[in-house]
Amino acid sequence: MEGAHPAILKRLLDTNLEQTPGYGDDHYSQEARERIKAACAAPDADVHLLVGGTQTNMTVIASILRPYQGVISADSGHVNVHECGAIESTGHKVLTILSADGKLTAEQIYRRWREHWDDPNAEHMVQPGLVYISHPTENGTLYTKAELEAISNTCHECGLPLFLDGARLGYGLAADGADLTLPDVARLCDVFYIGGTKVGLLFGEAVVITNDTFKPDFRSLIKQRGGLLAKGRLLGLQFDTLFTDDLYFRISRHAIELANILRQGFADAGYPFLFDSRSNQQFPILPDVLLNKLCDNYSWDFWTRLDEGHCGVRFCTSWATTEENVRALLRDIG
Amino acid sequence: MEGAHPAILKRLLDTNLEQTPGYGDDHYSQEARERIKAACAAPDADVHLLVGGTQTNMTVIASILRPYQGVISADSGHVNVHECGAIESTGHKVLTILSADGKLTAEQIYRRWREHWDDPNAEHMVQPGLVYISHPTENGTLYTKAELEAISNTCHECGLPLFLDGARLGYGLAADGADLTLPDVARLCDVFYIGGTKVGLLFGEAVVITNDTFKPDFRSLIKQRGGLLAKGRLLGLQFDTLFTDDLYFRISRHAIELANILRQGFADAGYPFLFDSRSNQQFPILPDVLLNKLCDNYSWDFWTRLDEGHCGVRFCTSWATTEENVRALLRDIG
Amino acid sequence: MEGAHPAILKRLLDTNLEQTPGYGDDHYSQEARERIKAACAAPDADVHLLVGGTQTNMTVIASILRPYQGVISADSGHVNVHECGAIESTGHKVLTILSADGKLTAEQIYRRWREHWDDPNAEHMVQPGLVYISHPTENGTLYTKAELEAISNTCHECGLPLFLDGARLGYGLAADGADLTLPDVARLCDVFYIGGTKVGLLFGEAVVITNDTFKPDFRSLIKQRGGLLAKGRLLGLQFDTLFTDDLYFRISRHAIELANILRQGFADAGYPFLFDSRSNQQFPILPDVLLNKLCDNYSWDFWTRLDEGHCGVRFCTSWATTEENVRALLRDIG
Amino acid sequence: MEGAHPAILKRLLDTNLEQTPGYGDDHYSQEARERIKAACAAPDADVHLLVGGTQTNMTVIASILRPYQGVISADSGHVNVHECGAIESTGHKVLTILSADGKLTAEQIYRRWREHWDDPNAEHMVQPGLVYISHPTENGTLYTKAELEAISNTCHECGLPLFLDGARLGYGLAADGADLTLPDVARLCDVFYIGGTKVGLLFGEAVVITNDTFKPDFRSLIKQRGGLLAKGRLLGLQFDTLFTDDLYFRISRHAIELANILRQGFADAGYPFLFDSRSNQQFPILPDVLLNKLCDNYSWDFWTRLDEGHCGVRFCTSWATTEENVRALLRDIG
Repeated sequence: MEGAHPAILKRLLDTNLEQTPGYGDDHYSQEARERIKAACAAPDADVHLLVGGTQTNMTVIASILRPYQGVISADSGHVNVHECGAIESTGHKVLTILSADGKLTAEQIYRRWREHWDDPNAEHMVQPGLVYISHPTENGTLYTKAELEAISNTCHECGLPLFLDGARLGYGLAADGADLTLPDVARLCDVFYIGGTKVGLLFGEAVVITNDTFKPDFRSLIKQRGGLLAKGRLLGLQFDTLFTDDLYFRISRHAIELANILRQGFADAGYPFLFDSRSNQQFPILPDVLLNKLCDNYSWDFWTRLDEGHCGVRFCTSWATTEENVRALLRDIG
Repeated sequence: MEGAHPAILKRLLDTNLEQTPGYGDDHYSQEARERIKAACAAPDADVHLLVGGTQTNMTVIASILRPYQGVISADSGHVNVHECGAIESTGHKVLTILSADGKLTAEQIYRRWREHWDDPNAEHMVQPGLVYISHPTENGTLYTKAELEAISNTCHECGLPLFLDGARLGYGLAADGADLTLPDVARLCDVFYIGGTKVGLLFGEAVVITNDTFKPDFRSLIKQRGGLLAKGRLLGLQFDTLFTDDLYFRISRHAIELANILRQGFADAGYPFLFDSRSNQQFPILPDVLLNKLCDNYSWDFWTRLDEGHCGVRFCTSWATTEENVRALLRDIG
Repeated sequence: MEGAHPAILKRLLDTNLEQTPGYGDDHYSQEARERIKAACAAPDADVHLLVGGTQTNMTVIASILRPYQGVISADSGHVNVHECGAIESTGHKVLTILSADGKLTAEQIYRRWREHWDDPNAEHMVQPGLVYISHPTENGTLYTKAELEAISNTCHECGLPLFLDGARLGYGLAADGADLTLPDVARLCDVFYIGGTKVGLLFGEAVVITNDTFKPDFRSLIKQRGGLLAKGRLLGLQFDTLFTDDLYFRISRHAIELANILRQGFADAGYPFLFDSRSNQQFPILPDVLLNKLCDNYSWDFWTRLDEGHCGVRFCTSWATTEENVRALLRDIG
Repeated sequence: MEGAHPAILKRLLDTNLEQTPGYGDDHYSQEARERIKAACAAPDADVHLLVGGTQTNMTVIASILRPYQGVISADSGHVNVHECGAIESTGHKVLTILSADGKLTAEQIYRRWREHWDDPNAEHMVQPGLVYISHPTENGTLYTKAELEAISNTCHECGLPLFLDGARLGYGLAADGADLTLPDVARLCDVFYIGGTKVGLLFGEAVVITNDTFKPDFRSLIKQRGGLLAKGRLLGLQFDTLFTDDLYFRISRHAIELANILRQGFADAGYPFLFDSRSNQQFPILPDVLLNKLCDNYSWDFWTRLDEGHCGVRFCTSWATTEENVRALLRDIG
């Protein structure tokens, strides 16, 4: 894990001694918000800049749900697994749906909603109040435009707002064959966020609220949950830079191209994959003996053990990954 | 659903005009607590009388867990399904384990705990902090003494307190072949409760805390969660009566005997069961055509649909059920 | 503290062996709700029957507030002092206003609201989202119709719902010179409750929701907060009886008449009062030497110490207080 | 408000392309923690690096309190006023003590604690579970070593942990006449934090836990509350730099010297002050007519209106303030 794209750091350096108001009331944050709305083709959206992903998920979800409601999520969803109960700490249950690839389908959502309201004991059960999906998912899988449209339609039909966790959104938009655009996401979701931490920034997640219902007082909730950065311009400067000259998309595309090389390399070497990922995350299944050799020079995340001799692992590429390093890894597995 | 066993109502009537202090500081509550401790062979336990089951579960669980901890439960556990997110409303996740019959095994608990601490991302995940079981379970199944001892040992080994939801405990203790006693339960659990609402009282659940760690300030938590009954003697009077002359066990045994007749009757008529229950709850699988005929004179709970013509349903017996009515039902299914 | 008015207990006894559905879906609860709506001249209100006061306050307040909002209350309000942080346990701050007599004025409410929104840091501060008053107050003081109308108008002007805690409401309505009626309360408040625990019932508080905004899913919240009584008909039967033949008002008036005798007696004996209370609570300031003599035969609540020799205390009358006992007390202080 | 001290930014730049593990497991964070422990003369302390102050306060307080406990704070405390109910959002009440200058005394704390436990209704009231003080306070006032020792002794006597909010701690330690040192603070408090955001960093607050009771699993709570920065080394690098070559103390002293000039200037010009502050915050009372003239070139915070023509305001100095600017301001008020 590196710091930030050099253009980001340069911007912080250039503006360091300027004096601006705090808490996001500065002109850099204002410009960042305008650029993001433009990139989303969502001129009426509200945009808020937060520091981290868990913070963002818990703030958005707490802002939407009534106390007796829960959020529908794939069982592998980040909010269900890797946020140490942040959602529950705000009083809400995560209503899980089993998913092999990390995606939800419109039909699964409809069925879960239908089951709740058909149950004679519905009043004694947590009411579905929101749908959470991540794109790319935690497994690197992607929604097509048709799939997201179907989900969005189902959500509207059921009166369930749709929230998309875009911690890695750029990689999903830049993937080969991806037909979803940022304006599509803005049009089909009620709230979503554009992750900066994993796409070139030091930190930062930009929440985009397109549904008017969820706009009022969102800053109060950010403050209450500890997410209102005092020197808010740091977020403004970073996102302003990220959404200038297509940096966000160029960074994302760079990582995708290297991930493609990586995937092809593992496939050529005969290794299968846990998931069919077109994003910057690749999940090859490798023998322990190989992993033991690689670990001096490369790092990955352990994902799951398949048998006594094999693990599924995750390799990630980013703006900072070089083709040279990817080629070296592929040579070393050869 | 009837009111209370006549002996309970009579006691309320006889004492109605007496003046006593409120909030459980009266002598009836004191006597009830003493009788319960004697019945549990747990002279050092703390006993608290609360109104209802969900209230009791949420208060006990919130009193034990640290904010980042969750409670391990069978997926069918009452706290996971039918309490409208009460546990989550106190900030805690229910960590579910799939269970076909509603019971947990010592091995499942150990494995769940082991998995957590073996995960390199354990710090990002909800920490198991407590084990919740119900006896009888929501499916009428029962733990043997050996099973509960194994669970208790595993819990101690893992540093996980054990909490037993005894909403229907009397029926479990009185079931044919049951080898668990109230002193066993008190010895093997850190906290448990003796349900009165479903065993002859108007309302009331008696929490028994045997582990000293969880004793301090429990009344403050009851008050905060809205469970401290102003006229607390109503609880004292009821439990005092229930634990006089073995009323609790006699009531429970009565219901079990009628449940046995019911089970035998369904079996004789060739109907299978969802669960092998020896408790007061019986879960026959019946054809819709029969259920449609029965519904004028009998009531049951829908449990699950098996196919287009059959449902699994639940019949319950209680202190108030008469053999006459059970026989009539069996005649009608004949 | 006695049990319940004999008519209440009789009703429970008469109906004890009837079978009804649980959780308030029985016909007694339905009839009770209808009678209460009639007594309030509020045919479109939603009525819910809960067990206790703290439970009711926390459920109502949690149902109305957004996460970053707080409830305005007199500093002496029950929700601020004697509920062990129940409101805070649902995530909300109590925004206190100093009050000498326990009442709030329309002007105080307006000023508190104005101050919040005029503060340049309003976004960093808990937003007022609700006004809580009690009638009678914790100090026995009463709102006039004009005062409640002024508060109601101010609340509407400020967009603040008005919630009235009527734990002792009957005594307020029955007090000498009281010009507020139950229909007035229903007309002027968004939500309020009619306390039964302190006015003749074993337990029970009837929430009346007149503002449509706060009606949906209230039962889910009751369930989640542990307030949905399994044998809900116990509440239905009690309130049905209480609102038949004016029992609620007759009980209340009885207590007021005895409180009047008590007040006059203390005044005739030359004792001052902490508060000018016309309700069933009287707050004489008495010498310790007298209190020490009285404590064998009478009980009261310590309220505050005034100097080394005098305390302010609270005497309460109720449906069960007899004139004989009141006269005896007055003789003994003579 | 500027960005960060140039040495901080330079360090981020120099290390930007290094690869390190995330979430604070990097060697920079490790070094920062060691330097902080050394500066505190607290080799056994646990040190955690968080992003912001509200986040830090809510995480520390939630880690210490039991559900029915509250935190004692001056009514002017940041946790009571300007955190949008963050403490209440974790379920806890702020138990306020009126304070004219923002400080608490040992005697006030003792009295508040005594009052709670002497109250016959203590079980119905929020239990004091922690004392929160800020140093410097929100009003710029400072504790002497003797005062902090008295508070610490009282806290230990009462079994109340002591938590010191050091968002501006450096300025308090560097103030003229200050006799408290960082090792004193570490010795006298159970938990405290060293604020970086207001003392030269882009962001960052270093929590120091000296009491072993509160050490376990603190990182889990940070994660749950959304405070675990993914690229944690950004915090490590900043604090490592801040605690190298006394930068923290040099920065703080610089601000104090300019604040002294400012205070003297206002005093010489005949203006009184709201508070007698020796810290980097100065609170002169100025005529509106003067403020209107100054607002083109200077910025301050509105604090309170004294009469129709005068306000109390706050001027802050920092590492970035120049003597030239301070002199210019003083000329302009002349």
